[in-house]
Amino acid sequence: MKTGLSVGQAQSVVLAEARPLGPEVVATRDALGRVLAEPVDASRTLPPADNSAMDGFAVRADDVRDAAPERPVELPIAFEVAAGAQSQRPLGPGEAARIFTGAPLPDGADAVVRQEDADWNQERVRILLAAPPRANVRDAGEDVRAGDRVLDAGVPIRAAEIGMLAALGRTVLAVHQRPRVAILSSGDELVEPDASVHGGRIVSSNSYSLAAQCREVGADPVYLGIARDTREDIERRLRAGRLSDVLVSSAGVSVGDRDHMREVLEKLGCTLAFWGVQMKPGYPVAFGRFAEQGPLVFALPGNPVSAMVTFEQFVRPALRKLAGHRTLFRPTLRARLTHALTKSAGRLHFVRVALERRDGEVLASSTGSQSSGVLLSMNRAHGLLVFPADATEIAAGATASVQVLDPEFFMSDASGLE
Amino acid sequence: MKTGLSVGQAQSVVLAEARPLGPEVVATRDALGRVLAEPVDASRTLPPADNSAMDGFAVRADDVRDAAPERPVELPIAFEVAAGAQSQRPLGPGEAARIFTGAPLPDGADAVVRQEDADWNQERVRILLAAPPRANVRDAGEDVRAGDRVLDAGVPIRAAEIGMLAALGRTVLAVHQRPRVAILSSGDELVEPDASVHGGRIVSSNSYSLAAQCREVGADPVYLGIARDTREDIERRLRAGRLSDVLVSSAGVSVGDRDHMREVLEKLGCTLAFWGVQMKPGYPVAFGRFAEQGPLVFALPGNPVSAMVTFEQFVRPALRKLAGHRTLFRPTLRARLTHALTKSAGRLHFVRVALERRDGEVLASSTGSQSSGVLLSMNRAHGLLVFPADATEIAAGATASVQVLDPEFFMSDASGLE
Repeated sequence: MKTGLSVGQAQSVVLAEARPLGPEVVATRDALGRVLAEPVDASRTLPPADNSAMDGFAVRADDVRDAAPERPVELPIAFEVAAGAQSQRPLGPGEAARIFTGAPLPDGADAVVRQEDADWNQERVRILLAAPPRANVRDAGEDVRAGDRVLDAGVPIRAAEIGMLAALGRTVLAVHQRPRVAILSSGDELVEPDASVHGGRIVSSNSYSLAAQCREVGADPVYLGIARDTREDIERRLRAGRLSDVLVSSAGVSVGDRDHMREVLEKLGCTLAFWGVQMKPGYPVAFGRFAEQGPLVFALPGNPVSAMVTFEQFVRPALRKLAGHRTLFRPTLRARLTHALTKSAGRLHFVRVALERRDGEVLASSTGSQSSGVLLSMNRAHGLLVFPADATEIAAGATASVQVLDPEFFMSDASGLE
Repeated sequence: MKTGLSVGQAQSVVLAEARPLGPEVVATRDALGRVLAEPVDASRTLPPADNSAMDGFAVRADDVRDAAPERPVELPIAFEVAAGAQSQRPLGPGEAARIFTGAPLPDGADAVVRQEDADWNQERVRILLAAPPRANVRDAGEDVRAGDRVLDAGVPIRAAEIGMLAALGRTVLAVHQRPRVAILSSGDELVEPDASVHGGRIVSSNSYSLAAQCREVGADPVYLGIARDTREDIERRLRAGRLSDVLVSSAGVSVGDRDHMREVLEKLGCTLAFWGVQMKPGYPVAFGRFAEQGPLVFALPGNPVSAMVTFEQFVRPALRKLAGHRTLFRPTLRARLTHALTKSAGRLHFVRVALERRDGEVLASSTGSQSSGVLLSMNRAHGLLVFPADATEIAAGATASVQVLDPEFFMSDASGLE
C-alpha cells in the first residue's frame, strides 16, 4: 500500500482499476445520459424516398422550363400525394400532381414547384416559374442510408441520439450499466437527520451529500446506514456492500484509536492500494478493491467538506469511467484571484471559491473559512481552486486553475439574441 | 397575434408568460436539481459546541504554557471524551482529558494538545509543546449559528445543499414544482418507432427527442400520442393536455391544407401570441396560452431538427423559469469558423456545428447538411452557431457566438493535476 501520493498519482491508481461496466438493455426513451455499449447502424434509409420539401406541385422539370409569370405553363392536376401516402401511379408527361411537404415524389416527376409560384383550381394548375430538376426535392437517404454507421459505441446519449434511434425504429439498445454505489457511514456519534442531536450527537449528513453526488453523475446510491464503532457492525454492513460496484465509506469524525474500518476491509479481502493523499482537505482518504470482481472501495474522511472533495477527485471520475464515459473530469478554467492565498508547501489545497465574470475574465474569491467542517463554504462555492502542492503563495491578481462544480456557472440569464 | 418576430422578441414574449410554478414538498434526499421555494434558516448551531480538531489532550492552556520537549509538563488524565459523548465533569486545574477529533471540549479546558506532541500511558500524559488558548479547538457555530439564513429561496439544490439540509435536520423542504409537459405529435403519416414504415410512413421521432429534452431540463414529459389529421382527434388529445403546465405539439411534415392544430387550439380557448419567427430552421413555430391557469402552448414544426431547435430556443428557457431557475439559457462561447458561411438576410440561422479546442481557442465547423430533415447533423453537433438575421456572410476565420448544447464539451479527459 502506498501512502502520501500526490492527487494526480492517486487519480491514476484509481482510474487504472476502474473499467467500464458491462452492457444492459434499456428502452430508448429511458436512455438519456447513458453511454452506448454497441455501435448503431442504420437499419433503414432516412428519408426512405425522394420527397417534397414544400407544399406545391410535382412536375417534370422539362415541362415547365419556360414557365414565367408572363408565360405560365398550364398543366392538369392528375392526382394528389399526401405525406405518408404513395402516389397511385407515375406522373405522365404534361401532368402535375398536388404534393405536400414530406410526401414521396411520384415516379416520373423530378421537381416540385412551390405553391407560391402557382395558381390552381380543383383540376388545373398554372405554373408561374420554372423549376430546375431536383428543385424542392429532398433526396432519399439525405439523412442516413441503410447500413451506415450512425452512432459509435461509447457515445453518450443525448436528446438528438434518442430522436435518431427512434427514427431508425430502435426502441431498445445496449448501454453500459449504471454504477451501484453502496454508501456507509460509521461513528458512534452519528445519527440520521430526523433524530435528536442532544448530547453531542451529530447528523450523518455525508450519506446525504455523497448519495446526491452519485445521483448527479448518474450512479445509483444504496445506503447501508450508520455502522457503530465495532468490528462486528462494520463487518456486517460491509459484507452487504460487497455486492455493489463501488463501496464508499465515510468515517465519523472519531478516527484515531477506534477506527476499525481499515482492519475490517482487509479482513474481508479488500486490498488497499493507497492511504493518505497529499491534499487538503482530505488527506486521510484510502482506496482499494476486493478481489475477483468485487467493488472498488473508497474510504473517505468524515468531515463533510473532506468527504465531498475527495469524492470529487477520486470517486466521481471513477463512476464516470464505470458508466462508459470518456470525459471523466469537471470543466476547469483559469480564474484571477481577488486576494492572496498562502499555505505551507507539501499538500495540494482545494480552495472553495465563488466565481464571478467581469470584463471578459473570471474572478475567484474564497468563500470564507476553509475549515473542513464548514459545509457552508461549499454551499457558497462555484468551484475548487487548485493551489498546487509545492506552491506557498498565490498573489492577489494572479491566475489559477479552478474546477467548476456548478454547471450553472456557465449558463446565462439572457440569451443575447436580438 | 404577431407574426415574423425576431428570435429575441419571441423569447421575451414567451418568458413574460412563464412564471415559476408553486411549491411542493419533497424529501431532501430526492431534491437534487430542484429549486428552493422557501428560504432555509438554521434551526441549530453547527457545530453545536466547541470541539477538538485533533486526536489529543484537552488542557488548560495556562497549565502547559511552559511545556517544551526538554521541559515536559506532566498531567494526570482525568477522563476521556469521545466524539458524540459529553464529558462527565469539568476539567480541573492541573488536569488533562484524552479527547478525539470532533469531541466536545470539556468545560474548564480551553486548548487541545495534539497527540503527536505528547507521550502518555493509561494514567498520565507528558505534554511536550505549549498550546495557546483555542489551539486545535473548533468553535461552536463555526459553520452555522441557529437562526442564520443559510439558503435563500431560489437557490438550486446541489449535493452540498442536500448535505447542509441534512446536517440541519431538514428532511423535507419546499421546492418549485417540476413542469409537466404534454407532448403531442400529429400527422396521418406518423407511426410509433416499433411500427412498420412501409408505404411512406415515417416514425414520430419528435415525441422521443422532445421528451428527452424535457427530461434533460428536469421536466416531466407526458406523451399524448399521435393525433390523426382530423379536428376530432386533435381536439380529444389537446383536451387531455390542458391539465399539464406546458403543451408541446409537433406537426407531422404535412402542414399546409390539412393543418387543424391552430384552429382547434383557438376553439379550446388558447390565445396565440405569435406564429412564425424569423429563424431557420424553425420558422413555423407558434406560442400561446390557455386562459385561467391553463398551460403554455408551443406548436413546433414537424421536421426533427426544427422541432429540437425551436424547443431549445423557446420551450427550454420557459421550463427552467417554471421550475424556479434564474439562469435560463445554455452556455454560449465565441468560436472561430473553419469555413465561410453565407445566407440571405432576414432570418437568424442556427447552424449545427462541431466544436474543437485548439491553441486556446474554439474552432467551429458545420456538421454537414443543414437541411431541417437531417437529424444526423444534430448527432454530430456540440452546439448551434448563431448566424445573425441581418448578416449574409461570416468569413472563414471570423468568430461567432455558439450555444453549447453538449455539456460534455466543457469536460475533460484529464484532471491536469500532478
